[in-house]
Amino acid sequence: MRLLAATVLSLLIAASTASGQQTTIEGLKAMPTTEDIRAVAPALEKYAKGVVLSDLWKRPGMSPRDRSIVTVAALIARDQTVELPFYLNLALDNGVKPAEISEIITHLAFYTGWANAIDAVSAAKDVFKSRNIGADQLPPASGPQLPLDEAAEAQRATRVGQQFGQITPSLVQYTTDVLFRDLWLRPGLAPRDRSLVTVSALVATGQVAQITYHLNRAMDNGLTKEEAGEVVGQLAFYAGWPNAFSAAPVIKEVIEKRPR
Amino acid sequence: MRLLAATVLSLLIAASTASGQQTTIEGLKAMPTTEDIRAVAPALEKYAKGVVLSDLWKRPGMSPRDRSIVTVAALIARDQTVELPFYLNLALDNGVKPAEISEIITHLAFYTGWANAIDAVSAAKDVFKSRNIGADQLPPASGPQLPLDEAAEAQRATRVGQQFGQITPSLVQYTTDVLFRDLWLRPGLAPRDRSLVTVSALVATGQVAQITYHLNRAMDNGLTKEEAGEVVGQLAFYAGWPNAFSAAPVIKEVIEKRPR
Amino acid sequence: MRLLAATVLSLLIAASTASGQQTTIEGLKAMPTTEDIRAVAPALEKYAKGVVLSDLWKRPGMSPRDRSIVTVAALIARDQTVELPFYLNLALDNGVKPAEISEIITHLAFYTGWANAIDAVSAAKDVFKSRNIGADQLPPASGPQLPLDEAAEAQRATRVGQQFGQITPSLVQYTTDVLFRDLWLRPGLAPRDRSLVTVSALVATGQVAQITYHLNRAMDNGLTKEEAGEVVGQLAFYAGWPNAFSAAPVIKEVIEKRPR
Repeated sequence: MRLLAATVLSLLIAASTASGQQTTIEGLKAMPTTEDIRAVAPALEKYAKGVVLSDLWKRPGMSPRDRSIVTVAALIARDQTVELPFYLNLALDNGVKPAEISEIITHLAFYTGWANAIDAVSAAKDVFKSRNIGADQLPPASGPQLPLDEAAEAQRATRVGQQFGQITPSLVQYTTDVLFRDLWLRPGLAPRDRSLVTVSALVATGQVAQITYHLNRAMDNGLTKEEAGEVVGQLAFYAGWPNAFSAAPVIKEVIEKRPR
Repeated sequence: MRLLAATVLSLLIAASTASGQQTTIEGLKAMPTTEDIRAVAPALEKYAKGVVLSDLWKRPGMSPRDRSIVTVAALIARDQTVELPFYLNLALDNGVKPAEISEIITHLAFYTGWANAIDAVSAAKDVFKSRNIGADQLPPASGPQLPLDEAAEAQRATRVGQQFGQITPSLVQYTTDVLFRDLWLRPGLAPRDRSLVTVSALVATGQVAQITYHLNRAMDNGLTKEEAGEVVGQLAFYAGWPNAFSAAPVIKEVIEKRPR
Repeated sequence: MRLLAATVLSLLIAASTASGQQTTIEGLKAMPTTEDIRAVAPALEKYAKGVVLSDLWKRPGMSPRDRSIVTVAALIARDQTVELPFYLNLALDNGVKPAEISEIITHLAFYTGWANAIDAVSAAKDVFKSRNIGADQLPPASGPQLPLDEAAEAQRATRVGQQFGQITPSLVQYTTDVLFRDLWLRPGLAPRDRSLVTVSALVATGQVAQITYHLNRAMDNGLTKEEAGEVVGQLAFYAGWPNAFSAAPVIKEVIEKRPR
């Protein structure tokens, strides 16, 4: 854990040399260095060391791997690409597999917008290259799928079709064909992690109205009540307190209504 | 249509040479190339070819021109400038006039924020330059206006003034003087298209509470029920599924309440 | 005031030479020049001169200093870094102290997301450097705090703990320990200004559900009813009309419910 803290600290508040070079080459903005932060907001460095690193990322209720997934999902959802290379590297250090990062980006093309995924590709490309992550470590474009719960999916499709089939047939059709009968069945990211990504993106972008369905799905897929609470705490820092406090009542209601 | 698909494909997932040069010159980030996408998320390329290009942009319910307007409005509203040059070029290819793009940017200064428009100017400037689009193709800063429905506008102004005149007089005043008695009367963008831009921006930024008024106005201005549904399907991809599903119930309610 | 207008005009629609140089060095995008804006959207220049500069920034209901705080908070909250150097310079010209800008950035790390603050550091660093603002003008990382209203804070903590303590203990704990018993007590930014920053960020990011608590707190801290209304008018321009109109009913309700 000391290694994690040191790594996080050095990267959280300092652009790596590699990043600095990429800035010149690709026109990407680099994260400010520790000195930059001190030259503007000394208190920000204090909170980074004294709260984010020494406490938040070490809390026992959620693994560093999962915290990385939550944080990367939030940054992609909010299109914050400056910090993304650092947190992608941290995610890989924390045990998130390259194939899972690939799937997270593809998943968020649909759950946060196409351009967010395209922007994330630019960041991930450099990270993958610097770590010699090649095509053999990526999921194939197509291939065998996870089994589908036909009854549950039919029920969902019927419900959504009745609600919106007359209003926006394209949305209804793509939701069934592309999302629930294809994207969600891709084996490169476990359904529980796919749900974790989805819920994180919803909280991070203030999509309160969509949390109920996806948090229930996440918990059906294995996310625990304790982890759900830690997602909110993690996102308070990475998506701001207002998003956390707008999500909290919905998450409370979902958890209290679920059968024990 | 084959030409459109080829154009879209080549541009959707590959930065043009011109863009690449701009990156060096202006510090703008370039869109990732097809190879970049394949090196990170092979499935994303699959969905780009197999769904977005071969299906979404070809759906009969809304013209490619209107899909371009919706998509450009979403990108400007979400301040996603990396992809904007490509989609501005595509919009021009699809028949959106330079003067209309100029008006879309000015319109969205008010409906999504001043800085979004300023950022869009940077992207559009290079696109206009590369296509030799000069001042003669742009709308004048001022000039003859479209006729105003004085009765309807007086009714709107009275209602808003009663609601908020005591609370925020500046907002009420500018809404009347600058928006409804000036911006909306500019002839460079048809009222129906101006409404399409507005509704797209609202859906793309999750401004659910403002959709009812502007979708009614859009349909008064000629947007069809079918087109409204296609806007939602288009924006599912370009602003994410959660924004589409948060807008859908409001759009349903508006459509069902309108006189047939 | 003529000087202000001239300054604003030159900077609002033209990148300074310094900025242009930073672009080359740091990979930051520069704001478009007046010529760029004219080459894309002549009407945008008209509105900049005829409304934003000649009217909005000169309205009597709120000081230019406060308008700068509101605008800078909105840009940081929306992660719009291209325009930020200009508005940081304008804020300093309008009397916002470097120490206050430092605190605004740290404050918004919590109220809009960590990465937003990190991105703002990059912009502020260059502005501070160009004006020779050194460490002696910045607030210390730690030090004496403002007095705490223990009774009110205990009441707040109890209420939030009862609501969410079982659901997300980390959020509840950090809210007390880091926010209300540390961040809000930092003396570098007056509580009234800290509230102004918070409310501006909430309105600018559509966090309607969080406005009631923080606007009441702001008015307890000295923000007047007239200023609250001007915040909405200022943010209509800098965060878009939909955010202003979604905030207006909540602000109205808060003001009407407060004891006279």
